[in-house]
Amino acid sequence: MALIVQKYGGSSVATPERLKRVAGRVAENRRQGNDLVVVVSAMGDTTDELLDLARQITNRPSAREMDMLLSTGEQVSIALLAMALHELGQKAVSLTGSQVGILTDDVHRKARIAQISSDRIRAELAAGNIVIVAGFQGMDQNNDITTLGRGGSDTTAVALAGALEADSCEIYTDVDGVYTADPRVVPKARKLEFISYDEIMEMASLGAQVMQLRSVEHGKVHGVEIHVRSSFNRNPGTIIREVKEMNNHRPVIGVAQDLQTAKLSILDVPDQPGIAYQVFSALAKEAVNVDMIIQTAPRNGKADISFTVHEDDRERAQAVVGEVAKKLDASGVICNEGVAKISVVGAGMTSQPGVAATMFGCLAKHGINIDMIGCSEIKISCIIRADQVKEAAQALHTDFGLDA
Amino acid sequence: MALIVQKYGGSSVATPERLKRVAGRVAENRRQGNDLVVVVSAMGDTTDELLDLARQITNRPSAREMDMLLSTGEQVSIALLAMALHELGQKAVSLTGSQVGILTDDVHRKARIAQISSDRIRAELAAGNIVIVAGFQGMDQNNDITTLGRGGSDTTAVALAGALEADSCEIYTDVDGVYTADPRVVPKARKLEFISYDEIMEMASLGAQVMQLRSVEHGKVHGVEIHVRSSFNRNPGTIIREVKEMNNHRPVIGVAQDLQTAKLSILDVPDQPGIAYQVFSALAKEAVNVDMIIQTAPRNGKADISFTVHEDDRERAQAVVGEVAKKLDASGVICNEGVAKISVVGAGMTSQPGVAATMFGCLAKHGINIDMIGCSEIKISCIIRADQVKEAAQALHTDFGLDA
Repeated sequence: MALIVQKYGGSSVATPERLKRVAGRVAENRRQGNDLVVVVSAMGDTTDELLDLARQITNRPSAREMDMLLSTGEQVSIALLAMALHELGQKAVSLTGSQVGILTDDVHRKARIAQISSDRIRAELAAGNIVIVAGFQGMDQNNDITTLGRGGSDTTAVALAGALEADSCEIYTDVDGVYTADPRVVPKARKLEFISYDEIMEMASLGAQVMQLRSVEHGKVHGVEIHVRSSFNRNPGTIIREVKEMNNHRPVIGVAQDLQTAKLSILDVPDQPGIAYQVFSALAKEAVNVDMIIQTAPRNGKADISFTVHEDDRERAQAVVGEVAKKLDASGVICNEGVAKISVVGAGMTSQPGVAATMFGCLAKHGINIDMIGCSEIKISCIIRADQVKEAAQALHTDFGLDA
Repeated sequence: MALIVQKYGGSSVATPERLKRVAGRVAENRRQGNDLVVVVSAMGDTTDELLDLARQITNRPSAREMDMLLSTGEQVSIALLAMALHELGQKAVSLTGSQVGILTDDVHRKARIAQISSDRIRAELAAGNIVIVAGFQGMDQNNDITTLGRGGSDTTAVALAGALEADSCEIYTDVDGVYTADPRVVPKARKLEFISYDEIMEMASLGAQVMQLRSVEHGKVHGVEIHVRSSFNRNPGTIIREVKEMNNHRPVIGVAQDLQTAKLSILDVPDQPGIAYQVFSALAKEAVNVDMIIQTAPRNGKADISFTVHEDDRERAQAVVGEVAKKLDASGVICNEGVAKISVVGAGMTSQPGVAATMFGCLAKHGINIDMIGCSEIKISCIIRADQVKEAAQALHTDFGLDA
């Protein structure tokens, strides 16, 4: 008898009909003799509807109260899924994040799981129940409700699988698995059978939003193999696991683009120590995540600093940098929105040279200008014009031998 | 500085606009220097929408999962009200029933409050917060969410006022207060300045549903004065308190009618000990609440037993009584639906004789036949024909000197 953690996303439970279909699938697994912990997200557009309600009240909702509000979405789903399982003759019980004992820090809307108590779940499993857990939510040490950020239900599932030492963690979503590129952008994209934690983290951070980053981190830390698959068919999906278990790894396993990126530049700041610190510590204080950074070579004792942020952080970043620019006596701040990031990802590139050269050559061949360059161990990213990103993605997919 | 508990019902918070108006009223009270605990219900039709969702899944939802589902309604309201108060520059924090520590028994959907911890609320008040509490909900000793039944938010408010020893408990609703009669039936009905716990319990049980019965019981037990008033205007409402504090109490303070009543008769049962016990213990076992009972004088060793039940219980009562009638060899069961109950209520009638005579005389004067009569300490009720109930209510209202 295996212990399986399954997670069904918002589109899989968007309507009562779909919820019943999920219940059928869960019941089938149960009849095969497995112990099941099922994590669910809010139904379809529920979260957006709740956000809209809040927007009618205020433009600057408190994060704590947003968590109080948003966490109701999953609570509705778990109650209904438990009812649907009862209707199929299965024993099932629903639990909120607080009831499970998912303890987080107190950073509302982006909380991190600190500890999971498995007592209540184990007791319910022992009583013969399928345990339905509200994804995306936990509670802090004050007993206040927290949420884990968009996609946080993945984190709930993976963290539970780790805490329960589950035999398997299945993430059901509306896509078949992880692809070498977004099929809407690159028609020749292929589904990957395996991908490493590091690779999918790079892919996810680049906008290929199959899994929430933190959920993969949890998987990596606790060694949880994650099976990403579709709730609408029976196809095998993609398994996320340690790279060392993979053979014949290509240098590049995927191409990803990110159009949700904005570039800011501070012009003519003094070329002296501590300037970059002033800029980026101010941004950090406002919780703005900075992605790529470049600083031009100084001329006449002045230099330009450019960096990119997620589109959502753009306004905040502009405000912060505007203040800092005044203090530094910079000549101005430029915000460039018509840009995108194109990246190639692959754990194999650490051992196989020439990936950067191939990438830059490919872009040059297609007349695509590179504005900024950034790398990690297993990723090379370029900022280019947003209207060239599709051509770039297709060309790179072909040149790195990824086409189907 | 007074500590005030306020409760706003579903219609008072039905839309974001109305929620903002409630926030305005709360903020005004706060600016007057009061400590405030505000209990809210689910927004308008939310509960019905959730019930409808459940109905699309199953016709026999588990009570535990219904509580999990329904309790989200209030959670949405409290989060939004806290946001609306923040928008007005007020410090406010929302708390679910579990977070407050409203401990109930485990009778899901009709739970009774067993104990209230006031620690969290007191800490939040001490921190300068307006405390917004989700009405209608609590948790049992397993940490499972329970609900208190329809109108349960009143109970939450009154119980909190008791536990916190609040200076005042204000129930905001869509009516101005408690009236001497239903103004739709008796146009000359007047709003009462005061009413006793016992009186309003009699009025409520007669269908004048201003307050949930249990909330008044809580008020009586813990000596909480309850101020019922409208959230749509500034008029003073009706204060519910102990009768001993009231002067010049009239013998009758109100007239109430109940059209949701059905009369059942078992004909020709043997006139011997234990028969009534057999009938009413069978009904009690099926949780049918019996209201009025009469037994005719026996003829030829046989008697008729008649009783009334709430319309909702009629079918069940008929089934039970049909069974019993067979066992007792009764000659038949009659169910009479075209009846209504008309009552006069007043704590003063205990010390002022002649109320019954005035009532019966008034009905006779209007040619209204009395089918059954029942009394409590502070109430006299008559079963009459349903189509005469309006005339009876108006006539009694006049004859007892209640007209405006």
